[in-house]
Amino acid sequence: MRRKPQQGREKAGDAPKHPEFEDRPVRGERGRAPVTGPRRGEADWIRHIQRTWGPSGAEVDLGDDACVLPPARYAVTTDALVEGVDFERRWAPPEALGHKALAANLSDLAAVGAMPRFLLLTLGIPDGLEDGYVEGLLDGMRNLARREGVGLCGGDLSGSPGGLVLSLTLIGLAGDRPLTRAGGRPGDALYLSGSVGGARAALRAFQQGAVLDRFEEAPPKDPVQGLLDRFYRPPAQTLLGLSLARPGGATCCIDVSDGLALDLHRLCGASGCGAVVEAERIPVDPRAGEWSEESAREAVLGGEDQVLLFAAGGEPDPEWVGAAGPPFRIGRLVEGEALELRWPGGRSEPLLPRGFDHFVR
Amino acid sequence: MRRKPQQGREKAGDAPKHPEFEDRPVRGERGRAPVTGPRRGEADWIRHIQRTWGPSGAEVDLGDDACVLPPARYAVTTDALVEGVDFERRWAPPEALGHKALAANLSDLAAVGAMPRFLLLTLGIPDGLEDGYVEGLLDGMRNLARREGVGLCGGDLSGSPGGLVLSLTLIGLAGDRPLTRAGGRPGDALYLSGSVGGARAALRAFQQGAVLDRFEEAPPKDPVQGLLDRFYRPPAQTLLGLSLARPGGATCCIDVSDGLALDLHRLCGASGCGAVVEAERIPVDPRAGEWSEESAREAVLGGEDQVLLFAAGGEPDPEWVGAAGPPFRIGRLVEGEALELRWPGGRSEPLLPRGFDHFVR
Repeated sequence: MRRKPQQGREKAGDAPKHPEFEDRPVRGERGRAPVTGPRRGEADWIRHIQRTWGPSGAEVDLGDDACVLPPARYAVTTDALVEGVDFERRWAPPEALGHKALAANLSDLAAVGAMPRFLLLTLGIPDGLEDGYVEGLLDGMRNLARREGVGLCGGDLSGSPGGLVLSLTLIGLAGDRPLTRAGGRPGDALYLSGSVGGARAALRAFQQGAVLDRFEEAPPKDPVQGLLDRFYRPPAQTLLGLSLARPGGATCCIDVSDGLALDLHRLCGASGCGAVVEAERIPVDPRAGEWSEESAREAVLGGEDQVLLFAAGGEPDPEWVGAAGPPFRIGRLVEGEALELRWPGGRSEPLLPRGFDHFVR
Repeated sequence: MRRKPQQGREKAGDAPKHPEFEDRPVRGERGRAPVTGPRRGEADWIRHIQRTWGPSGAEVDLGDDACVLPPARYAVTTDALVEGVDFERRWAPPEALGHKALAANLSDLAAVGAMPRFLLLTLGIPDGLEDGYVEGLLDGMRNLARREGVGLCGGDLSGSPGGLVLSLTLIGLAGDRPLTRAGGRPGDALYLSGSVGGARAALRAFQQGAVLDRFEEAPPKDPVQGLLDRFYRPPAQTLLGLSLARPGGATCCIDVSDGLALDLHRLCGASGCGAVVEAERIPVDPRAGEWSEESAREAVLGGEDQVLLFAAGGEPDPEWVGAAGPPFRIGRLVEGEALELRWPGGRSEPLLPRGFDHFVR
């Protein structure tokens, strides 16, 4: 863990005697005035993180030039959240943001059927961001990490002249037969592990001024706050991913992060087949509205649903249960390349690879 | 590899049939006007990267939700470069920046004696940055990756409302006995694998308006350009790190990235001992000036030298040769906690843990 803040507060006495994080001091202030407010110094952050996260289980842990992991077959994913692109700070408490950043990576590992174990965290912290915000972010991330058995084994702390940047690398134990996007076959049934459209509806609400008031262990009961909470709390599906990766499980799998339409195109592209989706079977998040043609069309374009979309040959296994319950069967894979969306009454249309880009225009 | 640019150029026809990168389209433009210039779309970047980098050797490669690596004991490091904090774009061609970003991570792996293998690359690309710049950056990184046997197996492409952000995670094969910072013993001789002070002097020159004109396979012969080049071209030391990690090799090792003074404090803190450094033995980069008390003091504060600082009990092994030749013996580890800097003539002073923060004020 390295620290490269833009202010230069490291003094001789600040250097830890046994630095278990790599506490890199200031690089390149480029003439900027140092922040003189209450912002915590790098050595303090290091102690804070050590105290609150504890050892990760790596053979060489945080605080060396690299961590060393026990021998295994590892799956690795990386996903960044950028302020002003993926979120605005005013939308929610920092705990929600920390949770979401890790959850997005967990969802990627679940899609290959891996068991999450080790996290590397890079933070780009803007000048003047309050200590409490960063602490909250780390708290939200750590609470989820504990539940998922994830240890923090490395990272890099830096200043950021733009907004807050979080870049995570999550490493998990992969089985002998990792799930990929490429194994689907015509005839396989197509499933979604949870509802879609909630994160998209929440994002719209945030853009119209809504704010998530708090982020606690249990989601809020209030339906409006519950919808906003959904944006930051993708359903846990690690165990589902592990089940899907077992022999006789799913033939292919993808994490739906850019909408069902676009991610189904990716899944079918990798598997070399087409698909038919029954529109009335699309599980529209009830917090985003009742099922209707309009809500289903919105949900298909989705964005950051972070549920699993997978295909399987036989009957669904009763063990295939994620945080959202049993999976929803929404259609099937077919021969060819075409993706078809079937509406009640027999109407049918091409399912175009449109995704998260379109609703923000 | 995911792409989250701020402009939304993905059209139906852009979606690759067999996406081997994860081409994530726009997330959260937040009302920003789309860039309508020549900037390459995400699907195009994906094809560009696939074509130029090729397969990484991972069991599940680029383009799935996570990559899966062959079973092994892995060392992992992560290091970010942030525009306006670590570099300015005007200082050098993009190839130099791509080279440096990977080289900084290579140096961290060398310090634990690991063999670099897999790279995950996250780019935050500001609006309007020319395609040619990103291509150059990728070229510079890939040229070094090829020489070092590193494959690109994952990543995340995003927009950035601030400057350019590069966040790399580098994964290497660790031996049974990884080098750490913690094994040094009083009496061990202390070595530097290369000269120090060059990157610091180059940074000063950049801040005064110097520009590195080109970045090619061989460093420039012109001494001024050679100094600037040093900032972007830390010496290759993967093989040295592997040698040092062998039985009977180094007892402890650190990558000097914040100056000899500060990083020696870290090494001694982790090893639980003190050190004596002979100032006249400090290998000041000749491009930064001849050895003098002043140049030695500058070099000690250093910054981004990215050479290895290590200790060893016996005589140096003739195999301990990095790109800069045999290592320089600069002093020894001693009992206690104190770090002492000895000047010619017998004068002595405490070596304070001051680093890279101080010269930019």
